[in-house]
Amino acid sequence: MTASARLAAERAAVDGALRRLLADRGERPARLHEAMAYAVLAGGKRVRPILARLAHAAAGGDPDRITEAACGLELVHTYSLVHDDLPAMDDDVLRRGRPTLHVAFDEATAILAGDALLTDGLGLLASRPPGAEWAVLRAAAVAVVAGAAGSLGMVAGQIEDLEATGPNDRGAADRAARLERIHRRKTGCLIRASVEVGAILAGAADCGPFTAFGDRLGLAFQVADDVLDATATADELGKSPGKDADAGKLTYVTLHGLDAARGRLDGLEEELAELARVLEGADGALAELARFIIRRSS
Amino acid sequence: MTASARLAAERAAVDGALRRLLADRGERPARLHEAMAYAVLAGGKRVRPILARLAHAAAGGDPDRITEAACGLELVHTYSLVHDDLPAMDDDVLRRGRPTLHVAFDEATAILAGDALLTDGLGLLASRPPGAEWAVLRAAAVAVVAGAAGSLGMVAGQIEDLEATGPNDRGAADRAARLERIHRRKTGCLIRASVEVGAILAGAADCGPFTAFGDRLGLAFQVADDVLDATATADELGKSPGKDADAGKLTYVTLHGLDAARGRLDGLEEELAELARVLEGADGALAELARFIIRRSS
Repeated sequence: MTASARLAAERAAVDGALRRLLADRGERPARLHEAMAYAVLAGGKRVRPILARLAHAAAGGDPDRITEAACGLELVHTYSLVHDDLPAMDDDVLRRGRPTLHVAFDEATAILAGDALLTDGLGLLASRPPGAEWAVLRAAAVAVVAGAAGSLGMVAGQIEDLEATGPNDRGAADRAARLERIHRRKTGCLIRASVEVGAILAGAADCGPFTAFGDRLGLAFQVADDVLDATATADELGKSPGKDADAGKLTYVTLHGLDAARGRLDGLEEELAELARVLEGADGALAELARFIIRRSS
Repeated sequence: MTASARLAAERAAVDGALRRLLADRGERPARLHEAMAYAVLAGGKRVRPILARLAHAAAGGDPDRITEAACGLELVHTYSLVHDDLPAMDDDVLRRGRPTLHVAFDEATAILAGDALLTDGLGLLASRPPGAEWAVLRAAAVAVVAGAAGSLGMVAGQIEDLEATGPNDRGAADRAARLERIHRRKTGCLIRASVEVGAILAGAADCGPFTAFGDRLGLAFQVADDVLDATATADELGKSPGKDADAGKLTYVTLHGLDAARGRLDGLEEELAELARVLEGADGALAELARFIIRRSS
């Protein structure tokens, strides 16, 4: 199987598991269920669960054993999108080509569906795979993800990102350091944690190389996002483009310019290929996923 | 030590641990940190962490070993209060005698602080007590709490509670069943899970009696809350009273009347005393906490 065929198969495996996990068994209130399914099953690249599965395989595990745990990462990611889109936050009306959750439903439902996705996502990581032999690994996985998503990670990044909107009269070096910190927390932490979860659940003795790969990939992901926001059309992007620049938001492109951002991505691609080679040998799926993330057009 | 002195000591132990966990070490963005501390350190009865500690002791454990894990329950509870108070939800301006978080700060900060409290709370349960010998118990504890708080528990209860506002033309039996389900999910699940966490972390072979006690206590808690909302002043309550009845919200009192609610509480108090006797012998702290919850005036 070519690497890109493997990525497509990965995405199909994750999508199938997400559909099963979010199937309507009449257990959740109908409105809550519909809102959660609307947000999660709208598409999406499934980067985080795929990362966990690929890292798990690179560390010697069977990725099919951890698909449901990996889906917990996608639920946590989706919660962050739903809450970030809220009127009190980024006030976005378009996501993945469709109305955002609070537009399609209402604000209360969007807040609660986000809360449920976060809770259920961490709950999946705490309970899958089942069986006592996995319990130590599950506890480690959920602790890593909660650390990456909480007040020292993703939420910290989002609050700093909101504060970074509007005129900013600090020096360039200070702004660059701040941007890097926001990127790292807002996007990078959960990307890095996704790679780590795969390694942890495989019982990897040394997660260091996985952490390094995830860390650089998280940065590449956000720089690519900033480039896309500055260059893509709404049609390609499925959300409102140019919004960050319009809002005077600190982005890699507004701060360093488009050419520098593209140059940075080239450098990160090389770096990631080298790190992936250590983890999985030549031309593996992790390197392909990194290339896909850097080169994507939506 | 009398039972009521023990409850005061319990609360002091929990408050001390919460203050340490929320101390400002400059790690969180200042605004996020202040908002989290404002919400958690505003007071509160600390019922859930105390329940976990007392259940842990009743199951033969040393409660001081699990105080930080128990604090995770308080963070999860506090998140639910912060989000429930939001303008899009219950739109409350007063909580524990002070402006609610979105009034004192702003809406975005309140949403994010709630998100962080939920994430950090589950993260504490996944990581405390530290040490490999606790890992299996930690994984079980966080799975139980996530299950109680997520789309099948607390969030489900809140969305059904919002839907239960306004004129309701269903039959009385249907309304009573619906109310019981909302109560059980919105408040009962996390109360029950708090008792279970204490027992789980003690490695209790049979959590059944703890589950039964927590289940009845959760119901008593909500009925007492409805009675208080109908009878107490804002001063006693520290939040706006009579709000539920004004909003045409389904409560035990609006549905069954004040006398029936008080009668139900008397019955639950006896039942809980009996269940507590099985867990901890006569006149123990769990029975005292149940009495306190049922008889409280704020």
